[in-house]
Amino acid sequence: MTREATPNVDLALFGALGDLALRKLYPALYHLDRDGLLGADTRILGLARREHDADSFRSTVLGMLKKRVKAKELEQTCLDRFLARLDYTQLDFDTVDGYEKIRDWHAESLDSQCPLTIYLAVPASIYGAICANLQESGSLDGDSRVVVEKPIGYDLDSSHEINDAIGAVFPESRIYRMDHYLGKETVQNLIALRFANPMFGNQWNQSQISHVEITVAEQVGIEGRWGYFDKAGQLRDMVQNHLLQLLTMLAMDPPANLDADAIRDEKVKVLKALKPLEGEDLNRHVVRGQYVAGTMEGESVPGYLEEEDANTSSTTETFVAMRLEVANWRWAGVPFYLRTGKRMPEKLSQIVIHFRQQPHYIFDPDQRNLAANKLVIRLQPEEGIALQVLTKDGGLDKGMRLRPGPLHLDFNHAFPKERIPDAYERLLLEVMKGQQYLFVRRDEVEYAWKWVDQLIAGWEKRDIPPRRYPAGSWGPVASIAMITQDGRSWYEDY
Amino acid sequence: MTREATPNVDLALFGALGDLALRKLYPALYHLDRDGLLGADTRILGLARREHDADSFRSTVLGMLKKRVKAKELEQTCLDRFLARLDYTQLDFDTVDGYEKIRDWHAESLDSQCPLTIYLAVPASIYGAICANLQESGSLDGDSRVVVEKPIGYDLDSSHEINDAIGAVFPESRIYRMDHYLGKETVQNLIALRFANPMFGNQWNQSQISHVEITVAEQVGIEGRWGYFDKAGQLRDMVQNHLLQLLTMLAMDPPANLDADAIRDEKVKVLKALKPLEGEDLNRHVVRGQYVAGTMEGESVPGYLEEEDANTSSTTETFVAMRLEVANWRWAGVPFYLRTGKRMPEKLSQIVIHFRQQPHYIFDPDQRNLAANKLVIRLQPEEGIALQVLTKDGGLDKGMRLRPGPLHLDFNHAFPKERIPDAYERLLLEVMKGQQYLFVRRDEVEYAWKWVDQLIAGWEKRDIPPRRYPAGSWGPVASIAMITQDGRSWYEDY
Repeated sequence: MTREATPNVDLALFGALGDLALRKLYPALYHLDRDGLLGADTRILGLARREHDADSFRSTVLGMLKKRVKAKELEQTCLDRFLARLDYTQLDFDTVDGYEKIRDWHAESLDSQCPLTIYLAVPASIYGAICANLQESGSLDGDSRVVVEKPIGYDLDSSHEINDAIGAVFPESRIYRMDHYLGKETVQNLIALRFANPMFGNQWNQSQISHVEITVAEQVGIEGRWGYFDKAGQLRDMVQNHLLQLLTMLAMDPPANLDADAIRDEKVKVLKALKPLEGEDLNRHVVRGQYVAGTMEGESVPGYLEEEDANTSSTTETFVAMRLEVANWRWAGVPFYLRTGKRMPEKLSQIVIHFRQQPHYIFDPDQRNLAANKLVIRLQPEEGIALQVLTKDGGLDKGMRLRPGPLHLDFNHAFPKERIPDAYERLLLEVMKGQQYLFVRRDEVEYAWKWVDQLIAGWEKRDIPPRRYPAGSWGPVASIAMITQDGRSWYEDY
Repeated sequence: MTREATPNVDLALFGALGDLALRKLYPALYHLDRDGLLGADTRILGLARREHDADSFRSTVLGMLKKRVKAKELEQTCLDRFLARLDYTQLDFDTVDGYEKIRDWHAESLDSQCPLTIYLAVPASIYGAICANLQESGSLDGDSRVVVEKPIGYDLDSSHEINDAIGAVFPESRIYRMDHYLGKETVQNLIALRFANPMFGNQWNQSQISHVEITVAEQVGIEGRWGYFDKAGQLRDMVQNHLLQLLTMLAMDPPANLDADAIRDEKVKVLKALKPLEGEDLNRHVVRGQYVAGTMEGESVPGYLEEEDANTSSTTETFVAMRLEVANWRWAGVPFYLRTGKRMPEKLSQIVIHFRQQPHYIFDPDQRNLAANKLVIRLQPEEGIALQVLTKDGGLDKGMRLRPGPLHLDFNHAFPKERIPDAYERLLLEVMKGQQYLFVRRDEVEYAWKWVDQLIAGWEKRDIPPRRYPAGSWGPVASIAMITQDGRSWYEDY
């Protein structure tokens, strides 16, 4: 394979001094540049309200790179090249005045073919205004693209509004909705694993898989965003996007090809097939939790209601566990157990596929309950895939005793310095290449909200308060009970 | 699991000064003793024609242990204990005179319950005489066992004779026919792999497996046994036992339990289902080879007809490759490609299971021919199992490129010093425990001979001479052509 050069883009970055840009986007862009994966004529325009000239902006970015990139990866030649791509324009995003500077900057493009690529690293509430101003100022043409970050709204209605506002200016084919989970190597490896390997592909259904777990555990608490978080809660903040995205990548039927819409059509089918959680299921198959004071790695930490700025009567959940069903031919009868929470003992994102037991058992009776095959797909803290297989225990004195042993897939082969690229590198590169398969389509966002909305409506109707769990635990005991009642347990191998 | 003590036995070893005993049996028994896997009261009586007293016999054994066992594993306490178990009796095997010494030795057993266990490390031609003499001398009782080595005869008729002679004295349930391939960890792991893991068990059939390769390549040539080998040839010497044993372990239907007869019933079914190679298939699906002079690891070596004692007009094969079919519901249409030869470039025993491609392909067109899943089961030089899986190539610039990566099963967990026990240790232990599932039943031997006999009859009828191949090559080019005509190739990853 000859390596294709990445197309040039003019990247206009709204929120250029914000947290996301500083922590994630510049380091990712720098790494792409260092790896020869930025078009030679690619330029980056920082846009923010603060006064800066190009040089002081470059200093700010350089300062951040020095914090976020390993010293040995900061090569002077490469830094010089990267910083030379940067420019800065002070801009009040709300009014059209000043947007002409974006138009003029793009008009000076080093490559007349390169698309203006707008990155909105700002709150969704101003997506609409920015898009309108871009259009009104004449900055856009038929190639312009826009990248937007989650959350797209707060519920189905508000997501409609936001998507409508963006959609009034950009066609769906040029809108890139980020969910950085989709940029993780491991998640993309799911596509290879499922569709390039008959060994897995053949068994990816209800006749061979008994159940699936998806855990996204955070160690952090609220980190100064109490007011913001309290309006959302863990279900909206994590499940609606990351967990449901993982679920759709796992559960989708095989797409006929790797085109963005072929894949996203299949993902949407999964969201549409998600069985609503309602009635008695809201008690049996969903657990809401809220952390109280506890201990994290030996240190006392406050409860959710004791955090800075907390409203002490909040009933917002910081943890949710649920048992989902995908009501289609592939997955009927296979529970998907999801859980996500803050103040968990470890930072852990992991999918566990439990294969069914063999129909007949011929080994030692006391090993009958040894789970046979599990595929553990880990996204955090370290990306990796392991298949658990039972082998004969090797001891001569063991007879035909079994032993569970993992087979580890080696992922680092292509990364000589054992650096797995950050999800933002992958996703920014895909934007530049104009490939949408790792971005979320409008209908995905909306079906996810629709499903989340019905669940929240049920909670409100039944007035289900969150159960308490101590910070540093794996959530309310009800989460254990929820899976135990099915004769199963959360996979523990942290 | 509490570890059960190995039952005591009185082991009477015929051929106590022979090659097999010295190179394999004493080291294996010593290792078992060192690992605490010999019954405390187990004794060993060496029997051979040569004059020796117990002390000089012990010195001989000690000398051999020093050559064959690693110095760090030769502990004085353990050596003392092991040597103290040994005794020696000079015996002319052909006549009954002297056999009473075995009876008397066993009468002095330290454990009245322990069975007399006869190990015949001698040519099969005298199995019958020894068994008869043992019986006539009154050495045997209803618990006595006999262990015999291959080859059991030269064809079906001669194997009948030998089996009849042994069977006239010992019932089948107390006859242990060795095939040391069955004692290899990896071969036993096939049982765990297939029957404890639904992931493999579910796919172990013609709908998921496209073909299977079994290679047993020797580097050695004739090693001074020209006359012996020339009467047999590679088909009788290697295929009739080792390769067909591997084939039956691979191909058998799942046994209802792990009892020796449950397993061996299934193995026999495979042998009975082996499609005879006859007519045009003898040319298309079988390749006979004989090595000519060539180069092994940089050194010239003579051809088969130039070896010491060679009859220069011999047409005996030193290589055979064949395409077999197991005509049953599980394997119809799945070729089993077998090959074995002397003077190959490497010492290699390996099974490769090729799974079928997925029904639809969605990745880069130029990677379409990347074989998807293969299970490589290696017996020599290093035991191990690896599953080949396609993952996403990790480079950011690779898009959805695929990469074949092996998943290695770790076998050494139970062997702290990374010593995988020799097959003879496992098999001797099973004899002491009275477990027959790793030994070859009479009907297995006979069905294997029946199949081999028809093949040899076909060769003789059609007068098919061996094709030449240079020492140090992978056999005649016809062996490549045989598999190429099916659009496949021998797996090469030596």
